[in-house]
Amino acid sequence: MARTILFLSDYGLDDEYVGVCHSVIARIAPEVRVIDLTHGIPPRDIRRGALVLADAMVYAPEAAVYLAVVDPGVGTSRLPVAVEAGGAFLVGPDNGVLSLAWEALGGATRAFAIESDHVTLTPVSATFHGRDIFAPAAVHLATGLALESLGKALDPTQLARVPLPEATVRPHLIGCDVIGIDRFGNVQLSAREDDLHRAQLDSATDLEVRVADRAFLLPKGRTFGEVSEGQPGLVVNSAGRLAIVVNGGNAAETLVLRIGDRVEVGKPAPAGRARD
Amino acid sequence: MARTILFLSDYGLDDEYVGVCHSVIARIAPEVRVIDLTHGIPPRDIRRGALVLADAMVYAPEAAVYLAVVDPGVGTSRLPVAVEAGGAFLVGPDNGVLSLAWEALGGATRAFAIESDHVTLTPVSATFHGRDIFAPAAVHLATGLALESLGKALDPTQLARVPLPEATVRPHLIGCDVIGIDRFGNVQLSAREDDLHRAQLDSATDLEVRVADRAFLLPKGRTFGEVSEGQPGLVVNSAGRLAIVVNGGNAAETLVLRIGDRVEVGKPAPAGRARD
Amino acid sequence: MARTILFLSDYGLDDEYVGVCHSVIARIAPEVRVIDLTHGIPPRDIRRGALVLADAMVYAPEAAVYLAVVDPGVGTSRLPVAVEAGGAFLVGPDNGVLSLAWEALGGATRAFAIESDHVTLTPVSATFHGRDIFAPAAVHLATGLALESLGKALDPTQLARVPLPEATVRPHLIGCDVIGIDRFGNVQLSAREDDLHRAQLDSATDLEVRVADRAFLLPKGRTFGEVSEGQPGLVVNSAGRLAIVVNGGNAAETLVLRIGDRVEVGKPAPAGRARD
Repeated sequence: MARTILFLSDYGLDDEYVGVCHSVIARIAPEVRVIDLTHGIPPRDIRRGALVLADAMVYAPEAAVYLAVVDPGVGTSRLPVAVEAGGAFLVGPDNGVLSLAWEALGGATRAFAIESDHVTLTPVSATFHGRDIFAPAAVHLATGLALESLGKALDPTQLARVPLPEATVRPHLIGCDVIGIDRFGNVQLSAREDDLHRAQLDSATDLEVRVADRAFLLPKGRTFGEVSEGQPGLVVNSAGRLAIVVNGGNAAETLVLRIGDRVEVGKPAPAGRARD
Repeated sequence: MARTILFLSDYGLDDEYVGVCHSVIARIAPEVRVIDLTHGIPPRDIRRGALVLADAMVYAPEAAVYLAVVDPGVGTSRLPVAVEAGGAFLVGPDNGVLSLAWEALGGATRAFAIESDHVTLTPVSATFHGRDIFAPAAVHLATGLALESLGKALDPTQLARVPLPEATVRPHLIGCDVIGIDRFGNVQLSAREDDLHRAQLDSATDLEVRVADRAFLLPKGRTFGEVSEGQPGLVVNSAGRLAIVVNGGNAAETLVLRIGDRVEVGKPAPAGRARD
Repeated sequence: MARTILFLSDYGLDDEYVGVCHSVIARIAPEVRVIDLTHGIPPRDIRRGALVLADAMVYAPEAAVYLAVVDPGVGTSRLPVAVEAGGAFLVGPDNGVLSLAWEALGGATRAFAIESDHVTLTPVSATFHGRDIFAPAAVHLATGLALESLGKALDPTQLARVPLPEATVRPHLIGCDVIGIDRFGNVQLSAREDDLHRAQLDSATDLEVRVADRAFLLPKGRTFGEVSEGQPGLVVNSAGRLAIVVNGGNAAETLVLRIGDRVEVGKPAPAGRARD
């Protein structure tokens, strides 16, 4: 049976780019199933694409083909690649968008450039490799083409990577970044649940969150509902990361937080003591 | 043959939530077809989700599984439920989002909590039950799992409901609400076509629409095209409800109408008479 | 095997219109595959719909059924039609939205009104022919219904057309329009790659682009990456048309360009000479 393709991009859905990639896939192999993970990655945001792909991958059918196109360098010297990791294939530009996924799959075991004109559409445009290179490679791999038929072998250790955003953990203090804001205004931090444990903060019922010169005292809840209606709080989200949420509201708007903001999570200053 | 799943949510498509639910379904049963009804329900708007589901359901494949996730109380005591009505199954939180649909299907005949860890993913997160509980339950039901295998039986009469927005009808006057505004700016009212008849307004060629202290004299058309270009008018929309439209334009913007606005539709004041 | 349906509309994805059309199709023939080309055509923009359909069609599975619904005149006298061209079928309103596609397929060979109540849903609403007429016709054609079973034969030469936006070419000067702006802010012009050749501009490394009383000197690149980071330039896009882009940025915002703007592309004024 053909492998399932999981497709992620920054193409959005207002244009025809995603539909054209689906068309190309259906034309080559109509029996292959394509699941759209999301096409709402902010334009050209390689790191966000890498993070979403790695987090979402956990729930995918086994031995899938991941097609991830966030490609600001389309048409430049960055190579189109196909990577094998943990029984899955990953197809996309060699700019790091695949890297957190193959790291999560146990590391890239083989990698090949996508060059064969038995695979790519001809001519290959200079500006739409999703259509001309990546979608065709993904569907050929889904239907059984050998990885080495795509083009020249690459050294997997030389593939581009995006740095995994890691929290810095000290006793009673976690330093982290805002790495995502969703439709509901929930603010995803790079810190993970066990960073709370490592920072000896897991027993705290309230935590102080500092962003630049602002500080918020936030209750820690297990769910949105454990935070008071309309109030902000901290939860562990469904990707296992800390998130700042507002029960019934939009935390990013309420607290004026943006992707890339540096955030400190720590013990509240003792009552009666000025915070700085 | 497996049942078709019809999936509605307030997840939007900019995030990966919908794609992850599709992944979970495909991992459990790749042969099941999933139709996305819409994921554009306004965040946490249970009533809008319930209305759209009930109206859209009429056109679905028979004996479908409806997966409806508008779930502001995720992780709280509201139960995840699966309901049987009219040969179909409905899966979602017990907060009313399913209620207009099972009422339209003739009433809920059986209902069960979704608890079995043969069905849910483990561990179940506190914040993403679409992925961990609802999507798995929907696909298991689609492939033949008995409803009673999900968990404990519930009393269908005790399920949460949202009030069906009903128009109040008096001679020559309909009181109703704005219950939806679509991409084109068409304004859907809670009044139905036969409310015009009950109010003895069906023969009128023009109707007066009052919203707070504003009043508009609107022609009644069968289609957008029967309303003059650029002008507002009243039509019966494709869900059988009254709608305020602007031919070639955006009625919600032109007339400054919003979801929840209270609207009166009545006979125009006689010419030459001050309205109040 | 059933034909594939390629579906394009201006319905957007925030409402349930697209999902309901998918439901109608699945109810009639669950085995038919539907690819969403895009539903992000600007509301009522027939010309944009026609252009996107014609450009995207090149990559579709052969002998497809194209379902294109951009239909500001829904419910008026414009006919719902099905057109045969180049082995494919095209279904939609007779308002020109199909015309660039059947022209690209070599011309319409047969056309029929969609009238049969064996095909349409009953009753047919006055405002949602996508659901009641077009989707049912498309799926019946996909599963083998003869075109002439739909309704009365029409003269293909009398079908509505939208004018193909053509560039005007003189030596060293191309006059064209902005016909599209995508998510990335890339500005698509109606001029095609060979218009550069016809205007003897293909060897130029820089071109002057004039819009109303503004002029920009833009380098010509093969790819986004050949244009300096953050700078605007001209490329041939993936549809074979000239496009104004900003490497890593949003050209439409940077240069304040909009769909419908008239653009001249020509030789730069010699250095030291006032431009007019």
